[in-house]
Amino acid sequence: MNRGRFIGVGVGPGDSELLTVKTVRYLKEADVIICPEKKEGSGSFALDIAKEYIDMDKVAYMTFPMHYDVDELKKKWSSNADEIQDLVSNGKMVVFITLGDPTVFSTYMYLLDYLRETDLSIETVPGITSFCNMASSMNIPIAEWEEGFSVVPLRKSVDEKLINALDNFENVVIMKPSNDGKALAKVLKEKGLENNFVLVTKSGTDKEVRIKDIRYLEEEKIPYLSTIIVKKNGKL
Amino acid sequence: MNRGRFIGVGVGPGDSELLTVKTVRYLKEADVIICPEKKEGSGSFALDIAKEYIDMDKVAYMTFPMHYDVDELKKKWSSNADEIQDLVSNGKMVVFITLGDPTVFSTYMYLLDYLRETDLSIETVPGITSFCNMASSMNIPIAEWEEGFSVVPLRKSVDEKLINALDNFENVVIMKPSNDGKALAKVLKEKGLENNFVLVTKSGTDKEVRIKDIRYLEEEKIPYLSTIIVKKNGKL
Repeated sequence: MNRGRFIGVGVGPGDSELLTVKTVRYLKEADVIICPEKKEGSGSFALDIAKEYIDMDKVAYMTFPMHYDVDELKKKWSSNADEIQDLVSNGKMVVFITLGDPTVFSTYMYLLDYLRETDLSIETVPGITSFCNMASSMNIPIAEWEEGFSVVPLRKSVDEKLINALDNFENVVIMKPSNDGKALAKVLKEKGLENNFVLVTKSGTDKEVRIKDIRYLEEEKIPYLSTIIVKKNGKL
Repeated sequence: MNRGRFIGVGVGPGDSELLTVKTVRYLKEADVIICPEKKEGSGSFALDIAKEYIDMDKVAYMTFPMHYDVDELKKKWSSNADEIQDLVSNGKMVVFITLGDPTVFSTYMYLLDYLRETDLSIETVPGITSFCNMASSMNIPIAEWEEGFSVVPLRKSVDEKLINALDNFENVVIMKPSNDGKALAKVLKEKGLENNFVLVTKSGTDKEVRIKDIRYLEEEKIPYLSTIIVKKNGKL
């Protein structure tokens, strides 16, 4: 019988104690642990987080480029999926590690689009999201009572979706604010929300930084691993 | 020196392996573990999830009524907060367990409103949310690419906030659909989304049920611990 299987696990936002018990078990049981990196040799932050549970002999890096040429990306994902399929077909238990939670804006899901078409055994294990960790570390709710919340990525710049979220939700999580801090600062000011946000960088690590000053968004280069929470009730 | 401290931890949606390593450690180190229950003797689902990590001699139940009389609720929360303050002031390490994640619609946060005013040491440890677990167990994304998602509780019935979420987000998580399944079915049909949702009950437990048939919403009594994901792209 082929014990080969493919498992995607979320390693959370940055603290190695925020992995789940199940993820730790799968990392111990795995034959191969795939660590995504942006380009060859660039390293994997997911691996940095999980490394104390990982036998480095099992690690295989896999490149997932970060750019906007969809054809190029698809070719790469497809060949990555083929590699995984080969390993699993050969009886390997393959664990793919991903930052945060695998269901929230993760590269892992693009890979699944290819693997779902095979007959491989696939399992996904959730992880702690950056926004839950941010709110926890400040002892504040993401949402309470009859409030709702929305999560929107800032892809290139401020768009209608973000405006709508700010207009209609008491709580808005903005992912990847690094893509256009200036435009974001402008819209927060226009909506009178310049004192209703917090930006957190490297949540869950010992380099975590919290910023509530709108001038930072206007003037500084926001680091890549940053998230913003906007709370209209101002409890930040 | 007083080693007293108060820590709120999320135990996730239902699977005892979805607790984080940190939460398990705190449960082992705790002097007192507070388990919320709806009324005296009703038991605590959070405790059921975490019990394999808990020495039952440390357990203290605390009642958090589930009704809409805000004055009554506030009186109870305030007296619960006083009890906790006494324990912590007497040097106890007190861990409060909460279902899912403590920052997403949890009773724990109402308690913090009282404890924040004291000088107690407070820490919050995030947990796996029900919606991340649902999506993981189906191997589907909550959101991908340039999509956003929103999370709205169905408090009494369908309201403007929910309509807006359905109109403007590719992905909508509806918490507590049990409050008015019929009205929800009606609005999903009106928006042509009757085949674009999944309802999951008791996510993460061995009693997990998935339903995609709109007639269930119309005709059945939806169990309390249910969540709906609506995905306009239909990948469910």
